[in-house]
Amino acid sequence: MRLLPADHQARRDGAHGDTESRTQETTHETHTTTAVARRRRETREVWSVTDGGLFAPDRVAVVGATEREGSVGRAVTANLLADFDGEVVPVNPNRETVLGEPCVASVGDSGADLAIVAVPPAVAVETVREAGEHGIDDLVVLTAGFGETGSEGAAREQELREIAAEYDLTLVGPNSLGIASTPVGLNGTFGPSMPDSGSISFMSQSGAFVTAVIDWAFEQDIGFRHVVSLGNKTVVDETDLVADWGDDDGTDVIVGYLESVVDGEAFVETAREVTSDTPIVVIKSGRTEAGAGAAASHTGAIAGNERAYEVGLREAGVLRAGSAGELFDAARVLAGQPLPETDGVAVVTNAGGPGVMATDAVGDAESLSLADLSDETVDALGEALPAAANRFNPVDVIGDADVERFREALRVTLADDGVGACVVIAAPTATLSFEALAEAVVDVQRETELPVAACLMGGEQASASSETLSVAGVPTYFDPSRAVGSLDTLARYRAVQRRKTDDPARFDVDRDRVHEILSRVRDRSDNRLGVESMGILDAYGVPTPDGEIVDDPERAATVAAGIDGPVVMKIVSPDILHKSDIGGVAVGVTDDEVADSYERLVTRARNYQPDATILGVQLQEAVDLDAGVETIVGVTRDPQFGPLVVFGLGGIFVETLEDTAASLAPVDEATARGMTEEIDAAPLLRGARGREPAALDAVVETIQRLSQLAADFPAILELDVNPLVAGPDGVTAIDLQLTVDPQTLPDRADTSHGDDR
Amino acid sequence: MRLLPADHQARRDGAHGDTESRTQETTHETHTTTAVARRRRETREVWSVTDGGLFAPDRVAVVGATEREGSVGRAVTANLLADFDGEVVPVNPNRETVLGEPCVASVGDSGADLAIVAVPPAVAVETVREAGEHGIDDLVVLTAGFGETGSEGAAREQELREIAAEYDLTLVGPNSLGIASTPVGLNGTFGPSMPDSGSISFMSQSGAFVTAVIDWAFEQDIGFRHVVSLGNKTVVDETDLVADWGDDDGTDVIVGYLESVVDGEAFVETAREVTSDTPIVVIKSGRTEAGAGAAASHTGAIAGNERAYEVGLREAGVLRAGSAGELFDAARVLAGQPLPETDGVAVVTNAGGPGVMATDAVGDAESLSLADLSDETVDALGEALPAAANRFNPVDVIGDADVERFREALRVTLADDGVGACVVIAAPTATLSFEALAEAVVDVQRETELPVAACLMGGEQASASSETLSVAGVPTYFDPSRAVGSLDTLARYRAVQRRKTDDPARFDVDRDRVHEILSRVRDRSDNRLGVESMGILDAYGVPTPDGEIVDDPERAATVAAGIDGPVVMKIVSPDILHKSDIGGVAVGVTDDEVADSYERLVTRARNYQPDATILGVQLQEAVDLDAGVETIVGVTRDPQFGPLVVFGLGGIFVETLEDTAASLAPVDEATARGMTEEIDAAPLLRGARGREPAALDAVVETIQRLSQLAADFPAILELDVNPLVAGPDGVTAIDLQLTVDPQTLPDRADTSHGDDR
Repeated sequence: MRLLPADHQARRDGAHGDTESRTQETTHETHTTTAVARRRRETREVWSVTDGGLFAPDRVAVVGATEREGSVGRAVTANLLADFDGEVVPVNPNRETVLGEPCVASVGDSGADLAIVAVPPAVAVETVREAGEHGIDDLVVLTAGFGETGSEGAAREQELREIAAEYDLTLVGPNSLGIASTPVGLNGTFGPSMPDSGSISFMSQSGAFVTAVIDWAFEQDIGFRHVVSLGNKTVVDETDLVADWGDDDGTDVIVGYLESVVDGEAFVETAREVTSDTPIVVIKSGRTEAGAGAAASHTGAIAGNERAYEVGLREAGVLRAGSAGELFDAARVLAGQPLPETDGVAVVTNAGGPGVMATDAVGDAESLSLADLSDETVDALGEALPAAANRFNPVDVIGDADVERFREALRVTLADDGVGACVVIAAPTATLSFEALAEAVVDVQRETELPVAACLMGGEQASASSETLSVAGVPTYFDPSRAVGSLDTLARYRAVQRRKTDDPARFDVDRDRVHEILSRVRDRSDNRLGVESMGILDAYGVPTPDGEIVDDPERAATVAAGIDGPVVMKIVSPDILHKSDIGGVAVGVTDDEVADSYERLVTRARNYQPDATILGVQLQEAVDLDAGVETIVGVTRDPQFGPLVVFGLGGIFVETLEDTAASLAPVDEATARGMTEEIDAAPLLRGARGREPAALDAVVETIQRLSQLAADFPAILELDVNPLVAGPDGVTAIDLQLTVDPQTLPDRADTSHGDDR
Repeated sequence: MRLLPADHQARRDGAHGDTESRTQETTHETHTTTAVARRRRETREVWSVTDGGLFAPDRVAVVGATEREGSVGRAVTANLLADFDGEVVPVNPNRETVLGEPCVASVGDSGADLAIVAVPPAVAVETVREAGEHGIDDLVVLTAGFGETGSEGAAREQELREIAAEYDLTLVGPNSLGIASTPVGLNGTFGPSMPDSGSISFMSQSGAFVTAVIDWAFEQDIGFRHVVSLGNKTVVDETDLVADWGDDDGTDVIVGYLESVVDGEAFVETAREVTSDTPIVVIKSGRTEAGAGAAASHTGAIAGNERAYEVGLREAGVLRAGSAGELFDAARVLAGQPLPETDGVAVVTNAGGPGVMATDAVGDAESLSLADLSDETVDALGEALPAAANRFNPVDVIGDADVERFREALRVTLADDGVGACVVIAAPTATLSFEALAEAVVDVQRETELPVAACLMGGEQASASSETLSVAGVPTYFDPSRAVGSLDTLARYRAVQRRKTDDPARFDVDRDRVHEILSRVRDRSDNRLGVESMGILDAYGVPTPDGEIVDDPERAATVAAGIDGPVVMKIVSPDILHKSDIGGVAVGVTDDEVADSYERLVTRARNYQPDATILGVQLQEAVDLDAGVETIVGVTRDPQFGPLVVFGLGGIFVETLEDTAASLAPVDEATARGMTEEIDAAPLLRGARGREPAALDAVVETIQRLSQLAADFPAILELDVNPLVAGPDGVTAIDLQLTVDPQTLPDRADTSHGDDR
């Protein structure tokens, strides 16, 4: 699959051989999403958006073109005829012409390089096959009645997927509103209007939202480059578009409305690369329980685990918008303004109150702070402004300011090295022309090349001047908090661009031993392993207390004698999950009590559950819980995003508060350290209230080692180290629970792959 | 002070006697803010907005009227002449006429009932005095140069305050942009325009914000009843306006921009009453540290403790807006729509994606939930809608819906008892006229009398239909989350209206004993009391461990013998704050160790701090901390809002997380219970993870008792009971610290006032 083949030109010239031979090469590949993603990464470099493909065809066929009023076929034909720079070929065996254009009888006769399909479902499938046979490999299927309608539709959608794979088609939809590409005037949608041109490329899993946005965006002076209604995402999905638009010089910002991500891992990998120079902002809906239910009934998409999406999108560098307003506020400023060099914001205002509101918004912002103006700047403002003005930030040029005073204040303020961005606020006054102010703002923005947002607060006056600002890409809002919010978006994206992405460390570990221990589930009635599997931690270099599992009282006494101080004894049984609840744990057992304690623990377990398999009793060196902080490191495996590592403090108090940090595995050191800093209870690890700080480096390393374990063994579905006691001298893992999928477990550890990641 | 005297009519007819005699009565009152507030409450009932006063004068004098271009005096005169229903009298000794109206030489000659003052500061003060002398007791002072400009200005402002008190003037400003009142066409501002008329009354501590809002509101179809630029709030403040507008039948919503509240306690008391039938929404700026600094430099207002404002405004029933956009979104819907009867929201849409976005917004909302439609409703929708539609909530009438299908779906859905409000969402389609849909929405809203918000998502089409919706008071936004947000505002206000405000319980307590203990600070070098004052808790019925403070080892042994089990011993000294740090605490002391332990504690204290006053050693019954949950109850005294009671869990973990709930003292039982439920760690009190639940009733009672203590003794500046151990059988206060203001402490306890609250 590819959106924009480098060999497009050759193919258009009739040299189909190349395409076919490539099709041959790829049809035998296993089309797992990972393989597709890998191929995408390997080949993306040679594609080019300016060179044909989905968004720049020369000749577009409309299959199902008609003149019937209210039909999709008529709407899309009319839309194409209205603006498209290339040729439009209606395909309809029953008509001579449609809307004045001569028809061809079948898509194979069209000579088109893009086909838009608007015929009933069964015919649509055959049309796609015919297009593939004739070398038309860019398609947009508007037809509904596929996976969204039940099992018959789902079967049809599977057929479509197979045809697309066979012919290596780039297919948008089905159940799509269509696509638009403003550089070539392509409106291949059945919506009411062609978007204005601009540098925002927009994809949406809701066709209605596309229509609404295009209509609304006219009034907002927001223009688009490419627009795609994703439909059922049978072939082309969000990851493909992100990859493609990331390579497109004309796309400054990628925005999306998504209800699901088809392949989370591929998306993260692709978006992480793209966001290093092209910002991506998405609404991922179904965030809330109610929303997830609604999304499922809308597109049949399973919204998935919100936590995993949150983590996955963050790690991909994707900025997430909570609402339609936030989405386009972000898009507008990212398309229009440069990024700030520092987080310091200056507020320049003729209105004290709105200046305070803006300052509060800076306080609320995720990545901004109020710039501290240098003495030189304050002095210079003192000279430029009347005595009653405020020379400090927020700079108040006061109510009688004219445009020249504003301009001077802006110049002086923006020259300060501590100022990375500026909000200009003006209330209407008798001495100020908003139109002149808008021009001054645009001038100063161009001179300084710093990002500026404006609040020209008023109705009619503001509307008149907003055109000037819009053209220059300066966002303007009535509400100071939205202007500040847009600068915060820039600062947040700057942080994404500057983040370091180290390769995760690869620790030297004993994979064979882990494989051997995990394989024990094959002999079990369930797939859970417990404290008897602490060897897994040993094998991955996570410290565990001295100890051993024994199966007779004499051996217990011998082991205890070899351990300093009293020991902890725990019954070991895959059938007994909550050992404490049945009296299956004894603490502070001295050497002479060990044998009796052994008998007592086994008796209790047998009384509690006569048929339980008892593997023995574990003896452990006692760890002083009070000397450290109890933490938890866990792993869960998300169907979209793969293994997630979770870190938090342990113990009843903090577990109740659900104060945890999560990242995709494997994590690099900086990410692991970030997790220990992100939780609210982080001060406790650093030694709050006079306590000795915990050995943070050891915690950070343990998170990395367990994340490597999770990545190395897809068979581990869930894992919990709880507690991991973090003391001043290091960490100790006290207990372990994990769930293993025996199906995913290879027959033997493939150690040859140990270091090829 | 009063804005709208009942005797206004009589006074206008020349019968000044009544006014003067009332002035006599009041000038001898001590004008503490509390007295003002009390008087306000006592007399509000007889005022009436329709009957003259600040907002409905017959004759307005403009002192400083002039024709000079760009002057305040010209602007306000012109504004008044343009629209005012009554007479305008320019006051200027140097001119015959201003803008065609004959002048008088001084305000005393104007015969006006409202004077607007726009002369230099020193003259303004004399003008106000003259107005007072001539019975003109409603004034708006536009002049700047008072408290906001330094000590000279502050002295002038004090003079103004005294004159106003002497003549009982209702004075807005100084440093005000003016006032407007649309029912009488009064534009007494020097801003560029008169607001549209409506039912929102608006006050602002920023004049520029008034100008900006009025200009912007035209385009937004937002109208106003009264508008006041508060200026320096020397006389008329937010509490006066809230009281006045709360009594005004023409005001449906009160909105405000505030940087401070002059008298927090009076405001809470007044607003609490007003919000039972008139909603109040405010921006209180200076929320963040940066914003607080900006507010201080803007108006010299100390932003105050954000936590106290948060609690105070919440308890007053005031809805708080975070931004200008939120403020007017809230105002618009509160003015236009009825309140919902239940929190259930239905979404009716022709667009799946935006429907999901709306549903997420419902999930995010503070007071809304997604309505669960009844089987009858679902069946009825099944009949009304095509098969592909979604009959469940969010109801999707799908893309080919015309207005009649929409109308029917709305009728059926809104008839469901579980539906309290509805969001109607439409994307533009070929089959739907937005104008017709807007009319249908308005019809259904009127028929059902349920609140409705709309998202007619588009540009031009939507603008055309928004007029229809606006006129009917139905808010419409492009962004589904804003539409849902406006319904959430209604639900939040409904919760305010329905809240129960019980009188706080008055427990039978021993005030004399507390007075006696507090008085001990008079003999101390500092004003802190500690564990030696646990008698205070006893006196207010808060359980403390058995124990006693002793000053010799023999007595220690005797006391210990009378206590069950081992005891806890603590050194008692006002000079040693952190007892544990110097080894001043011994736990688990058995009877035979008590005497030795006594000597050891005293020796350590003397070694640590030879000059420390040692009051003795406290012996306490040991309390099993593990059997209960450590909590904290604290009191702080806010300069604006008085005593605040704070509740949270104790112990190092939870203290680090700052998870606390706060309320104004005294608290009623429901509020105290709410505090125990509000904290994130609340599940721990209820017995999370198999623990026995704590005695919540005892915690709730203790919060009430300590809140009574705080209210009874203004001399208590701070108090901390930490920990208060909450076990299954009750609570025990283990330790106490408090700070006392000896100045505020009366000479003896005034027990006669014990029950007159």
